[in-house]
Amino acid sequence: MKTYRILIDCHDEKGLVYKISKLFFEHNLNIEKNDEFVDKENNKFFMRSVVTGKIDKEALTKSLQEILPQGANVRVIIPRKKRIVLMATKESHALGDILMRHYDGELAADIVGVISNYDLLRPLVEKFGIAYYHVPHEGLERSEHEAKILEILESFGDIDYIVLAKYMRILTPGFVERYENRIINIHHSFLPAFIGANPYKQAYDRGVKIIGATAHFVNNNLDEGPIIAQDVIRVDHTYSWQKMRKAGRDVEKIVLARALQLALEDRIFVYANKTVLF
Amino acid sequence: MKTYRILIDCHDEKGLVYKISKLFFEHNLNIEKNDEFVDKENNKFFMRSVVTGKIDKEALTKSLQEILPQGANVRVIIPRKKRIVLMATKESHALGDILMRHYDGELAADIVGVISNYDLLRPLVEKFGIAYYHVPHEGLERSEHEAKILEILESFGDIDYIVLAKYMRILTPGFVERYENRIINIHHSFLPAFIGANPYKQAYDRGVKIIGATAHFVNNNLDEGPIIAQDVIRVDHTYSWQKMRKAGRDVEKIVLARALQLALEDRIFVYANKTVLF
Amino acid sequence: MKTYRILIDCHDEKGLVYKISKLFFEHNLNIEKNDEFVDKENNKFFMRSVVTGKIDKEALTKSLQEILPQGANVRVIIPRKKRIVLMATKESHALGDILMRHYDGELAADIVGVISNYDLLRPLVEKFGIAYYHVPHEGLERSEHEAKILEILESFGDIDYIVLAKYMRILTPGFVERYENRIINIHHSFLPAFIGANPYKQAYDRGVKIIGATAHFVNNNLDEGPIIAQDVIRVDHTYSWQKMRKAGRDVEKIVLARALQLALEDRIFVYANKTVLF
Amino acid sequence: MKTYRILIDCHDEKGLVYKISKLFFEHNLNIEKNDEFVDKENNKFFMRSVVTGKIDKEALTKSLQEILPQGANVRVIIPRKKRIVLMATKESHALGDILMRHYDGELAADIVGVISNYDLLRPLVEKFGIAYYHVPHEGLERSEHEAKILEILESFGDIDYIVLAKYMRILTPGFVERYENRIINIHHSFLPAFIGANPYKQAYDRGVKIIGATAHFVNNNLDEGPIIAQDVIRVDHTYSWQKMRKAGRDVEKIVLARALQLALEDRIFVYANKTVLF
Repeated sequence: MKTYRILIDCHDEKGLVYKISKLFFEHNLNIEKNDEFVDKENNKFFMRSVVTGKIDKEALTKSLQEILPQGANVRVIIPRKKRIVLMATKESHALGDILMRHYDGELAADIVGVISNYDLLRPLVEKFGIAYYHVPHEGLERSEHEAKILEILESFGDIDYIVLAKYMRILTPGFVERYENRIINIHHSFLPAFIGANPYKQAYDRGVKIIGATAHFVNNNLDEGPIIAQDVIRVDHTYSWQKMRKAGRDVEKIVLARALQLALEDRIFVYANKTVLF
Repeated sequence: MKTYRILIDCHDEKGLVYKISKLFFEHNLNIEKNDEFVDKENNKFFMRSVVTGKIDKEALTKSLQEILPQGANVRVIIPRKKRIVLMATKESHALGDILMRHYDGELAADIVGVISNYDLLRPLVEKFGIAYYHVPHEGLERSEHEAKILEILESFGDIDYIVLAKYMRILTPGFVERYENRIINIHHSFLPAFIGANPYKQAYDRGVKIIGATAHFVNNNLDEGPIIAQDVIRVDHTYSWQKMRKAGRDVEKIVLARALQLALEDRIFVYANKTVLF
Repeated sequence: MKTYRILIDCHDEKGLVYKISKLFFEHNLNIEKNDEFVDKENNKFFMRSVVTGKIDKEALTKSLQEILPQGANVRVIIPRKKRIVLMATKESHALGDILMRHYDGELAADIVGVISNYDLLRPLVEKFGIAYYHVPHEGLERSEHEAKILEILESFGDIDYIVLAKYMRILTPGFVERYENRIINIHHSFLPAFIGANPYKQAYDRGVKIIGATAHFVNNNLDEGPIIAQDVIRVDHTYSWQKMRKAGRDVEKIVLARALQLALEDRIFVYANKTVLF
Repeated sequence: MKTYRILIDCHDEKGLVYKISKLFFEHNLNIEKNDEFVDKENNKFFMRSVVTGKIDKEALTKSLQEILPQGANVRVIIPRKKRIVLMATKESHALGDILMRHYDGELAADIVGVISNYDLLRPLVEKFGIAYYHVPHEGLERSEHEAKILEILESFGDIDYIVLAKYMRILTPGFVERYENRIINIHHSFLPAFIGANPYKQAYDRGVKIIGATAHFVNNNLDEGPIIAQDVIRVDHTYSWQKMRKAGRDVEKIVLARALQLALEDRIFVYANKTVLF
């Protein structure tokens, strides 16, 4: 008896739940959990099922594709630890939080390595016995710097997600496309407010009463990728932007961890630059 | 073409989704929305479907019962305005908020009448052209007082829900049983904290930093019925209990309205003194 | 014995608290509540005191100005009901909530009248015995329309605040300047995200997981005035923009009421396009 | 030029702010920040000032006591790193979060050591170069176990706070009295709901829609000490109590850190089993 996570998205049409659940029934699979959503505007059907039973993964995928509308995406996933790479710059709160959760066994993930453009976080990362790769960017073109990072990433073999735990450099389109919907970033504002540099300073200048953080997949428009998770905290006139930044750390790390958790549990669909979360 | 809300709860067993969706398919019903939940601890299956098509309500109910495990509860509901009765005492915020939402057309409900043990709220209620019934409790045994209320309720014919919008008297077991899971109360605390009288005073005395409100179905244990909705607001040492009470009004009215909305949209299952909300 | 609210803002300098509290002491005033804030970036001092005693308002103002740095703003306020005017367009939830709070006696305010560019809200407003002024905008230049509104406003005599309870037209610079920091607007987004038209549609298109509302004083840049209050609610992929708009009503009305309450209690300082709230 | 935090609480009487600010002025102290609160119910005055200048700490304390009502508490504090001891049992999330914040330099504290009744957390603690003391409780009377802990605590010399980062044993009255208002505990519920063992199981059984965490000073009534900080998260019917416990970890660690931060910055007054926080 195995457990499978089955993620389906396709054009909506009548009878999809029936056809899919019939197939599960015929293959003697038991549905543990089922979530469905129909986006009527785009006429799109999403379904995530957790089923138990005995069947070959490829066979199940093929059977599903036969009964689904053309162009259907089917992912049959046998839960396993995902392989993730962390990238960071100088700040340790988001990175440290993930290291600690990993140490706790809270994440279904192996951290393959940590890549940074500074050497500052090495002592922290190495405490946890995780490989640290310092790739300085000084004196390099952006593409040269990324080429070095890509070389390291490729040396890792297959990886599932790259987590930007306050990695403060912009990635090139080439890099982003290579890992489409697999790079998770934490932006330190309640997007789409305060895109770009120093959002806490922007928030302070605007005099907002609430600040936030946004975890999103990275695409090629700065801070405009599909949003996975957001949260906020209250501030008031006594907050300098430095105090906002300090207070914001807690919400940044919690929101990033929440998004990562959703990714590790295969709960995210991406479409139309948005996410469907089950 | 009609829309039906179909609510099913029964013992869980393999193939339920398949059997139900097959039946929908055979009756040419289109699933607009589907929510399922399996409570593994109690081996219980819950499903709420919104379907469109043409079929007799009784026929559909019967067909469903034939394919479901024994003891299954099946509700096939054709959406219509529910008939609700409001009960209140002296405070107007929760009552007024419902009257305003009703006036706005935000509620799929007809307010059949408002019953109060005081005459204080009459002018407000009558502004909105709604019948007001003053049933004084002074000098009456609890059972005598309730008998008068019941008489009024019966004169209304069928009613769906009784909403206690800060009705500050305890109902007897007989009354409660008569309207099982159909009386919605708003309690002015974050239950189960501060059961009973003057929860704001209790909260003040305890020095809490957050206060809340809880909407629940009424059962025969004071403030212990199934919880439908809760929310909270922050307070600090500058709050007297009177200021807490004032601040609490907003969360009370919002939470009660949210619970009522869930009930009017047939989104609530009750079991094991809890609610499943879809 | 009277109660005074004393609001002071001026350049910061050593000894201000001492000088002010000395003056209160010498005039035999008892401090009930005292809030202070120093904005170090702008070297600005803010203080709001609630004092009780017997002294002439003008005399106290003069005494304070004598001991404070040049250019100090001093407001000595004897608490009284403020005179407010509401403006609305078609939606009733924010307007209705204020009408209900006013009816409850929750607001230290007299509603002088309601002005709208439609006649739709008249029945609601007149239920509460409040004068309704329908000023259609069709076929009029913006300035002509506003001239009619101004005429009505002037007929009211002194007014303290104009509350835009979902008034969906942009005011001209001339109008705004006339009532500087006295026009409170509710914007149906978490500003500065989604400035302009249909923010719920914008929020839906962007795929945010949280939506909000912002109450602010109106200045001459659309949706860019000093923020008074903000709050948020969670949404998910199942929310159409229409459902967001519906859910957003509750946060809009609560945030607007909170901002109005702060204004009525003289708790707001405005400077550098921000607010200091005590 | 030094910075002092001055915390005063005493019976309220007319002219306190004047007398205190006069004394600051005469000693040439500049007020950087001032917070005051009068509890009218108990006729009690609280003030926390941050001042800069040059004066002897003892002299300032003495001067203040001379002008204040009898029985006044005066604390003149020169900000320094506090010396704290952490106690834990088996769970690492709250402990790890404090270790990480300490590593980040976010806490104005030296962690003198970590004491646990298990040896489980030793590898984590020693990664950060902090001394770990394993004091098994098996086979010992509670008093014997605590005697061993007290011996270790005494060996540390002066300590400011003991932080119970999920230390799952009840302390005896003798222990608690020794460190009155200096032991900070995190309780994994929104107190006073769910006092005692396994609050997540209790919350699950009650069917609440919100769970929380509470940081409080420990007194001799289980989970009834003065509350410092609380926060909540939403749950729904899909949460088993184990899932609640997992979700609750984030709010536990954040709330504990917030309370510790308040303590380290000398922002807490305790009276009447409550806290005043500036």
